[in-house]
Amino acid sequence: MKKWILSLMMLPMMAMAGSVKSPNGNIEVKFSVDNTGRPVYEMTYKGREVVRPSYLGLELAKDKHATMGMNEKDLMDGFMVMNEETSTFDETWKPVWGETATIRNHYNELAVTLNQEIILKHQGPTGPDFHERPALATRTMIIRFRVYDDGIGFRYEFPQQRFLNYFIIKDEHTEFAMAGDHTAWWLPGDYDTQEQMTQETKLSEIRGRFNEAVNWSNSSVATFSPTGVQTSLQMKSDDGLYINIHEAACLDYATMHLELVDAETKALTTRLMGNSNTYTPDPKPSPYPLPAPFTFVSHLTPDATGLKGAMQTPCETPWRTVMVSDDARDMLSNNLILNLNEPCKIEDTSWIHPTKYCGVWWEMIVGKSNWHYTNDYPSIKLDQIDWSKVKPNGRHAANNEKVKRYIDFAAKNGLDEVLVEGWNVGWEDWANMWKRDVFDFVTPYPDFDIKMLNEYAHSKGVKILMHHETSSSTQNYERHIKEAYELMNKYGYDAVKTGYVGDIIPRGDHHYSQSMNNHYLYVIKEAAKHHIMVNSHEATRPTGLCRTWPNLVGGESARGTEYEAFGGSNPDHTCILPFTRLQGGPMDYTPGIFETKLSTWSDNTSWARITIAGSLALYLTMYSPLQMAADLPENYEKYDDAFQFIRDVACDWDDSKYLEAEPGDYITVARKAKGTDNWFVGGKCDENGHQVNLRLDFLDKGRKYDCTIYADGKDAHYETNPKAYTITRKVVKAGDVLKLSEAPGGGFAISLMAR
Amino acid sequence: MKKWILSLMMLPMMAMAGSVKSPNGNIEVKFSVDNTGRPVYEMTYKGREVVRPSYLGLELAKDKHATMGMNEKDLMDGFMVMNEETSTFDETWKPVWGETATIRNHYNELAVTLNQEIILKHQGPTGPDFHERPALATRTMIIRFRVYDDGIGFRYEFPQQRFLNYFIIKDEHTEFAMAGDHTAWWLPGDYDTQEQMTQETKLSEIRGRFNEAVNWSNSSVATFSPTGVQTSLQMKSDDGLYINIHEAACLDYATMHLELVDAETKALTTRLMGNSNTYTPDPKPSPYPLPAPFTFVSHLTPDATGLKGAMQTPCETPWRTVMVSDDARDMLSNNLILNLNEPCKIEDTSWIHPTKYCGVWWEMIVGKSNWHYTNDYPSIKLDQIDWSKVKPNGRHAANNEKVKRYIDFAAKNGLDEVLVEGWNVGWEDWANMWKRDVFDFVTPYPDFDIKMLNEYAHSKGVKILMHHETSSSTQNYERHIKEAYELMNKYGYDAVKTGYVGDIIPRGDHHYSQSMNNHYLYVIKEAAKHHIMVNSHEATRPTGLCRTWPNLVGGESARGTEYEAFGGSNPDHTCILPFTRLQGGPMDYTPGIFETKLSTWSDNTSWARITIAGSLALYLTMYSPLQMAADLPENYEKYDDAFQFIRDVACDWDDSKYLEAEPGDYITVARKAKGTDNWFVGGKCDENGHQVNLRLDFLDKGRKYDCTIYADGKDAHYETNPKAYTITRKVVKAGDVLKLSEAPGGGFAISLMAR
Repeated sequence: MKKWILSLMMLPMMAMAGSVKSPNGNIEVKFSVDNTGRPVYEMTYKGREVVRPSYLGLELAKDKHATMGMNEKDLMDGFMVMNEETSTFDETWKPVWGETATIRNHYNELAVTLNQEIILKHQGPTGPDFHERPALATRTMIIRFRVYDDGIGFRYEFPQQRFLNYFIIKDEHTEFAMAGDHTAWWLPGDYDTQEQMTQETKLSEIRGRFNEAVNWSNSSVATFSPTGVQTSLQMKSDDGLYINIHEAACLDYATMHLELVDAETKALTTRLMGNSNTYTPDPKPSPYPLPAPFTFVSHLTPDATGLKGAMQTPCETPWRTVMVSDDARDMLSNNLILNLNEPCKIEDTSWIHPTKYCGVWWEMIVGKSNWHYTNDYPSIKLDQIDWSKVKPNGRHAANNEKVKRYIDFAAKNGLDEVLVEGWNVGWEDWANMWKRDVFDFVTPYPDFDIKMLNEYAHSKGVKILMHHETSSSTQNYERHIKEAYELMNKYGYDAVKTGYVGDIIPRGDHHYSQSMNNHYLYVIKEAAKHHIMVNSHEATRPTGLCRTWPNLVGGESARGTEYEAFGGSNPDHTCILPFTRLQGGPMDYTPGIFETKLSTWSDNTSWARITIAGSLALYLTMYSPLQMAADLPENYEKYDDAFQFIRDVACDWDDSKYLEAEPGDYITVARKAKGTDNWFVGGKCDENGHQVNLRLDFLDKGRKYDCTIYADGKDAHYETNPKAYTITRKVVKAGDVLKLSEAPGGGFAISLMAR
Repeated sequence: MKKWILSLMMLPMMAMAGSVKSPNGNIEVKFSVDNTGRPVYEMTYKGREVVRPSYLGLELAKDKHATMGMNEKDLMDGFMVMNEETSTFDETWKPVWGETATIRNHYNELAVTLNQEIILKHQGPTGPDFHERPALATRTMIIRFRVYDDGIGFRYEFPQQRFLNYFIIKDEHTEFAMAGDHTAWWLPGDYDTQEQMTQETKLSEIRGRFNEAVNWSNSSVATFSPTGVQTSLQMKSDDGLYINIHEAACLDYATMHLELVDAETKALTTRLMGNSNTYTPDPKPSPYPLPAPFTFVSHLTPDATGLKGAMQTPCETPWRTVMVSDDARDMLSNNLILNLNEPCKIEDTSWIHPTKYCGVWWEMIVGKSNWHYTNDYPSIKLDQIDWSKVKPNGRHAANNEKVKRYIDFAAKNGLDEVLVEGWNVGWEDWANMWKRDVFDFVTPYPDFDIKMLNEYAHSKGVKILMHHETSSSTQNYERHIKEAYELMNKYGYDAVKTGYVGDIIPRGDHHYSQSMNNHYLYVIKEAAKHHIMVNSHEATRPTGLCRTWPNLVGGESARGTEYEAFGGSNPDHTCILPFTRLQGGPMDYTPGIFETKLSTWSDNTSWARITIAGSLALYLTMYSPLQMAADLPENYEKYDDAFQFIRDVACDWDDSKYLEAEPGDYITVARKAKGTDNWFVGGKCDENGHQVNLRLDFLDKGRKYDCTIYADGKDAHYETNPKAYTITRKVVKAGDVLKLSEAPGGGFAISLMAR
């Protein structure tokens, strides 16, 4: 008799499992298995329902390579609770950079070990596990809950075991049953882009709003269901509970979306056909019954074959997170996502530093100059062009003269780095051509003298920030990455902005798939080996990996400032992002547009929906260790008194206090600059304006501060009068109250320098 | 009016195009376009039909990114002949290694320039090619024919042009209309494996034989049609014409298969569903009419999305080749495939050398020892194992002691290198697990002292031959390739055997797709940079790239000797491979099994269908610059007098003369060793035996030669008496005749050392 048969004799410890409460008792999670052996959890906050009883489980693909039918039973039901462990954890850790100098990681944990019996099939006598007849074997899965005072995280864990070695996920069926028809701030669920405007609707209105919510002209759109949404998903219940669903530590696993079950849901999952808004039912829908309306079901990003991930034990899923509070500010000060990630894996972090930068970028985005150098060819093959002989088109921005101008500007204004896009050959035909060998990441255009420019920058105490647009040709990037990073080391670059514009090559893959998430992490690790910081654009939305890999100093993965040149974003956009996109990590939003009407200096008729004072506020309300002054030097020079705030503001903090917050309406935050006694305060509001009574309670008692207030002018308005601002100086102390008026689409910024 | 409109005013030069003959006039190709503008060609040999009128063209995928509908018209019809150029080429070049010291490349060429009008769609005013109304534009395609005395090559070329920049191939529809129901030696068409037994049937019998021809238990099987076959496809007409269809210079393009139209063909292409023998019609069959029965239509290997290739102009397809002769020997001496490849691109080739080797390999294949080191774990994650602490399983072959034994054997017997498989960690669970990070290619098992063993080998004038099994996880191999080759350089390895066992990772891709062909070439180029020779197993079947990249010294890509341990191959197998698999380049067949009944030294009940004399013959009849002595040293030591031939035989040649040949029956060849006056002759036959009157006409007149004949013994038989051989020594001269008798499954080998 085989050894593993013994496990059959172990009896389940209990039919039902228990519960665990947060340290302060406000949050409780209950776990059980139902009479078919399906795992179920529920969550309350101060006794109020947050997640109603919801199933947990994974559906497996029937892999042709699985021996003995090991993978023919899903990890969905037939589970028995074998063990239950509770524990408490409390530590305080120091982030390499962040909103606060220290972060407390305090939770109570419940780990439930579940066993499931499977029937092994007969296998021929040459197999490694020959046996004559079908036989029973046992698989083990652990579901681990961590319950914090401001939310929970839970994940599936698969220990190394004899009968669960490899498996392919057809989909993960983690449910989040909402207790009502909440208001939600959502983006259409999509495998490739999150550069859409956030929608604010009731859950029941998602389906009706969906088509309108998608920018179908974006070539990367790959939605999957008319009730599919992205995470982080911020919600608010009718009775004032703020609830946020996201994930933490998504490593070698597909990014999770949510599919809402509503009254019309027929079968999970529908499937989008091509780049259109026509959905067809999944040809192989899940055999498991549909949950109740207002339930979100996880939906992972597929690979080119439609499957969701290949796993090898020991392994675990990312943490699925539910943050909750009756105070919206807790959604912003919450560190749940970071805490659920592993501690820093980089031993020497001395080379990682918060960075303020400007760049040769906005003028190309606006369309006044180009990334590409020549118009000579209908298409480019890198190995066939002699760049010294091609005719320049006269609009190439990344040229020696212009880059020196930016370097001078950075040096004069205390900016650390200068991003230069379009420095390297290949921009003539780079995106969405299914072109694999699109860039080599090492060859500059003839008018970009890489050696001279870096020496020039360094002589002025400035660094050039590298740009690697991959054009989503990830194999090509990986083939060149070592050479590319060696070039950076050679010339003294210490940060790279990566880009993933366009459809993923190889065809059929998606930006948020397991393989791409693995790629992004590969890039971060290779960069760390070379002491390079990474700012990853168009990558998957972050899940707190910057705790483990703090050289991931920024990312885009949302609708950034560039869209102000593509038709504009709503004024409330920046009052939503901190509740959603920023939950997983900082965003390189590239704030700081002063000349909001682009037509004043270009042919672009788009305009930024923000006031100058509002732009300054973003340096505080949109936390990031990487902050760009995105406008042109000549535009800043016209408003140098306002630009003083950008010169002054810190981008690393010892403390942060969210003073006011309401999703989509306003955010006010005070932050204490790292290693100083100076504070900075920012307030940003939506299109309706906002009045603030700012109590300076956070200042050191008995100390005086030189206060400079950058506020909207009296008639300021994001559309009609965006450049009206006032600058007021006064001396203040703890307990003082400042009355501030934020204009529609406006805000304020304050520096408080300790005397 | 746009400039490109001007092209409409150019009138076609002619409605029909012309013909071109081979230098000796035996072969003629005629080309025309029919009344729908479809290109048609036909081919004759000495006035006999070889290819009846057959269409040429490519069907395009409708790419969402194609601007202005540029790709909405296939490259199939609507063509006008704009220009026709004929030319003659005659050169003689020297291969770095080969069957002859020089190769003549002599052909007449016809290049036909075809124009096709397309309708451009309206595009919005933001597009790069704004125009108000649909408009006409012109695309250009060149079809180039090279006509040799022993066959033809033709390809599609796409010059760089305004309205054909990028396109995606849905399929290539190159037709080869056969003139009759020829006998064919074929392998089932498959996207992933060619390790099958060749079938010999009439064309009309392919469908009926197909299911039987597939080894469905091979996990990599991915057939696509019940009349799909692979190239190189050898045929023989009822009236004695030998015809061979293959391709040359398949670079960044999918490998071509052929789908036969027979009486039952309903629609091209059918599609295999999963790993079974059930075919369903293509959901989107080609809209073009089916050709006549006995026509082969090209069928390219798809990517994970079912498409066949992404192209950027300027570009061209591989050459499609048709070799023809009324003498079977011309099929073997033919250099058409090599000649159609580009000249050598490696400047310094001094480090490339033909190689005889033995290896720690056969005993693992047979099952007497293992590649893997431990049985401790159900699966392995490389970053979680401390190899110094795991328990050895006691069966690991690549250990210091055994490797030294092989090095000693190689040194003693003049073998250049020793292959060692299983030297590096990760073999515990390496294939078909969808495991990406399966090997790191640099970490030896604890019992393989890489430094000591290389030093030991070098001290004896022997090199170790590196082994990189990728497990078809190509991304993982590319991530490690630079480090892996640097390790090889560090320790003095100069050759690597690569392997691609199992399904390709990422899922959905295939061994013979465009992306994989690009990968194999990437590996060859990276290896060349490091002065490393490549012997690529389970890769795509070769198409003569070894002319351009002579560091590609060998490959497998067919059913090799290993199958003698997996149930055996038919005795005629090696009398077919030179007509088929070897057309594109040499094969690492790993001949030389002396102990053909494996049960005499192992538990394996399989046996090699060959006599010892037949095994010796393979060193001549299966041309390769890389020749293994595959059996164990102790097995060779028992037959040291026969092993003398392996010690003596060359593996690089100044001249080769095919004396007799018939596909599947027998091959007799004489070769003159490079830089010497010595000749070696080999004869190999099928299961029926063969009588040879060997006239030594090829020897220098008036010179004497010490002749050693290794022949089958009187009652030798591949099954009942495989080890019966005779060794006869005599002195011979030009004009002498040797009467030789090849036993069933046997052969002979002769060395002729000039006095």
